Amino acid sequence: VTVPSRSLLIALAKANLQSEADGALFERLARALKQAIADGHLGRDARLPATRDLAKAMAISRNTVVAAYELLSADSIIVSRGGSGTRVAAQGLPTPVHKAPAPESASRYAMRARSLGPITLVAGLPVPRYDLHHGEPLVHRRIFNAWRRKLAAATLRARSGYPCPWGFMPLREAICGYVKRKRGIECEPDDILIVSGTQQALTLVSRVVLNEGDAAVIEDPHYQMAAHALVAHGARVISVRTDQDGIVTADLPREAARLIYVTPTHQFPSGVTLSQERRLELLRIAARTQSWVFEDDYDSEIHFDGKPLPTLYSLDTSHRVIYAGTFSKTVFPTLRLGYIICPPQLRQDLYKAKLLDDLGCPSIEQAALAGYLQSGQVDKHLQFAVRELRQRRLDLLRALADHLGDQIEIGGQRGGMHVAIWFKGLDYCQFEQLLHLGAVRGLGLHPMTPYYTVRPIRPGMLLAFTSLTSLQLKVAVEILGQCLSEALQRPAAA
Amino acid sequence: VTVPSRSLLIALAKANLQSEADGALFERLARALKQAIADGHLGRDARLPATRDLAKAMAISRNTVVAAYELLSADSIIVSRGGSGTRVAAQGLPTPVHKAPAPESASRYAMRARSLGPITLVAGLPVPRYDLHHGEPLVHRRIFNAWRRKLAAATLRARSGYPCPWGFMPLREAICGYVKRKRGIECEPDDILIVSGTQQALTLVSRVVLNEGDAAVIEDPHYQMAAHALVAHGARVISVRTDQDGIVTADLPREAARLIYVTPTHQFPSGVTLSQERRLELLRIAARTQSWVFEDDYDSEIHFDGKPLPTLYSLDTSHRVIYAGTFSKTVFPTLRLGYIICPPQLRQDLYKAKLLDDLGCPSIEQAALAGYLQSGQVDKHLQFAVRELRQRRLDLLRALADHLGDQIEIGGQRGGMHVAIWFKGLDYCQFEQLLHLGAVRGLGLHPMTPYYTVRPIRPGMLLAFTSLTSLQLKVAVEILGQCLSEALQRPAAA
Repeated sequence: VTVPSRSLLIALAKANLQSEADGALFERLARALKQAIADGHLGRDARLPATRDLAKAMAISRNTVVAAYELLSADSIIVSRGGSGTRVAAQGLPTPVHKAPAPESASRYAMRARSLGPITLVAGLPVPRYDLHHGEPLVHRRIFNAWRRKLAAATLRARSGYPCPWGFMPLREAICGYVKRKRGIECEPDDILIVSGTQQALTLVSRVVLNEGDAAVIEDPHYQMAAHALVAHGARVISVRTDQDGIVTADLPREAARLIYVTPTHQFPSGVTLSQERRLELLRIAARTQSWVFEDDYDSEIHFDGKPLPTLYSLDTSHRVIYAGTFSKTVFPTLRLGYIICPPQLRQDLYKAKLLDDLGCPSIEQAALAGYLQSGQVDKHLQFAVRELRQRRLDLLRALADHLGDQIEIGGQRGGMHVAIWFKGLDYCQFEQLLHLGAVRGLGLHPMTPYYTVRPIRPGMLLAFTSLTSLQLKVAVEILGQCLSEALQRPAAA
Repeated sequence: VTVPSRSLLIALAKANLQSEADGALFERLARALKQAIADGHLGRDARLPATRDLAKAMAISRNTVVAAYELLSADSIIVSRGGSGTRVAAQGLPTPVHKAPAPESASRYAMRARSLGPITLVAGLPVPRYDLHHGEPLVHRRIFNAWRRKLAAATLRARSGYPCPWGFMPLREAICGYVKRKRGIECEPDDILIVSGTQQALTLVSRVVLNEGDAAVIEDPHYQMAAHALVAHGARVISVRTDQDGIVTADLPREAARLIYVTPTHQFPSGVTLSQERRLELLRIAARTQSWVFEDDYDSEIHFDGKPLPTLYSLDTSHRVIYAGTFSKTVFPTLRLGYIICPPQLRQDLYKAKLLDDLGCPSIEQAALAGYLQSGQVDKHLQFAVRELRQRRLDLLRALADHLGDQIEIGGQRGGMHVAIWFKGLDYCQFEQLLHLGAVRGLGLHPMTPYYTVRPIRPGMLLAFTSLTSLQLKVAVEILGQCLSEALQRPAAA
């Protein structure tokens, strides 16, 4: 048992854990611990105090300490290793954290951004043997060969000058055809603004429709980076729960929210689909309250069950929907190209915001992507990806039935690139143990907790099936089943 | 003589030209005319009312109307054609302008962005025969061949996943070596944040250090897009005059400005160099008032007169300088890659702002650029570019001496890619005539007016020498000399 050092306790005391504005106590503790690691109170690979001892020294509940460690563990900042206790990860913090500048030097934006919890950045972290991390699409070597040729052709034809800020016209034309084919959306090339991905789409939209303090709705659970962008921008973020039919429209705040951010096709991360009834209700509310709906259609191309429901953009007759599409899930994420289909009233504002933000996306890549779309290779790749991922998902579900059986419940699964599972009869202490056991045996497991504003009663995790083959998925699930049995042997917390 | 139509006069009356907050009367009139064109009160190629008639109908000074026409003409929205009067440009407005949405839908950011004057976008406009437009570097076909190979190599080695948001490490390392070699800057790869260019650098910095209403200083004259980004962000922009030694530090506001944006190596667009004495004074002021200095070192690589002065970043001992570099002028603009060298106190804030903004720049292009820098080809291209541009500049200056002689004065010219010239004994009416005559004969001329907060007493223009060869420059200047003689034959305004 390692007793907390005096210097660590002082650092934690200084962190002012009392301010309730900054999230739950366990989150504040996790941030304070992260800062203490950054400040060198705990070096790389240093052993953390036992949860029992730290709880006692700080006069707080042990569960709070456990939850804080869990958060840090989920972010790969600390690693639990059965016998040798919990330690700071060998690679240290993903990025160096410096002393905060004097408060007078930072804007309110910067202060809000600093207050946000840590985000798991996969880039640069060691990849576990069986990585079930979500977010990365199925990428075939073929894509890179095709992409190389498209880039070479585009470079030879390139104009060197500044790009058209709203996007390369042949790409916007190709996207018009693409969204009509894939999603039945009717629009004009001029409605399309090329952006560097959904993240930029959301930041541009925030700037154009939200003042500091304006209300914005997100789903609970939600994509962390979307929530963070809204919080940093200064929005008053209201999270509205989702059920098996998507966002619960009856729970939308009575006061008008300026912006409602939704993922209708496959709710992220729960995977459920927004029902047709809720879609219409959401659009009625948006029209009545003059709210904007941000439709993040990040992975609708990967759908296994017939065609996905029509987009909000197509259903909307009041021009309140801003549609965001991305090529991160259909080509590859490092491409950094996506698009906004702008409602007419916002088009000029969004155009101008893009111009002011970065003068426009690089044109060689836009030309290459236009060629890639026009050649039909993207459609062909998607056919392959859907076929392959459908099979992997079936194999994953079969393996889950074999090895975890009725110990889990499986969330929405009509498409997308991951499955959400929920554990029955497992408390969060046992779940933490499960994560540790998995990590030791090479499983890259991703808990649901970080995506929820309020921690769900049952622990859950995301299992993505893009980076593992069917065979690897079977092995991974078998290991997961063994880890679960072991974790359940630990007594549940009182 | 075309008398202004009733519908046009009503549109102009509705535009509420009385609000002095929106700039000088001629600027408000120019905006109102632009809106009238957008709204269809004047179609493509339609003839504008004669300045005299419009002035009379609106009961304002004719000079105001002339200045407004001049602004629109500089933005290629209208074209003056000697005999047939002034007409709306055949290509219409550079981008469609839609009806403004209902005010409740737009943020203060959007409202400010809308209020900004038009910006000349070269992309998509017809290129004149002798284009003296500034901003584009010297690009040799060789570059594209080399770039194609670097891209192909980077694509084959690429990791498909999300990029590291702060930048691809080998590129940051290569930039460390590059800025040490070129500018004597000592920094670590971790100090470097890869951005999509100087525009993004400035918007990220604004967000991190400026609240709405905070003071920010720009030079007068200045790069329009920088001023626009600051205004849209909500900064209270204070412009401080420059003289032959750069920004007049004695004129800096007494109240602390949070941010001071400067172009020390070659002031844009005047071309003067910030003197060593002023550099030190600026840094003293920044340290005392806890202001941040944004050093836009956009083209220091193109310098003809020994080495440029050391950067503010190198001179600064108080860590108040944010250094921004770009590859738009050394490789080509459509690359969309640049970098910030962050002062330590702002590093984490800027990192986070980049992450929240767009998740990072595309990594294939970053890897290609790293390879391109490491191969020594960028240095080699710069040697070629400096040698070639030095010769062109000499030829340009010689031609100016031959054909315009003592009718002009030439601004700072120790480097950069353009020369600023000022006309003696030419009033703005004659200058407008000169621009028209030039346009008719295929000269792409670019007046100084749009870069100034207050119109300079003498008219001036920028002559860039990157897109024309020495021979073409000689022909262009000869034509310019002829146009000047003709313009001077018109009587000066009272």
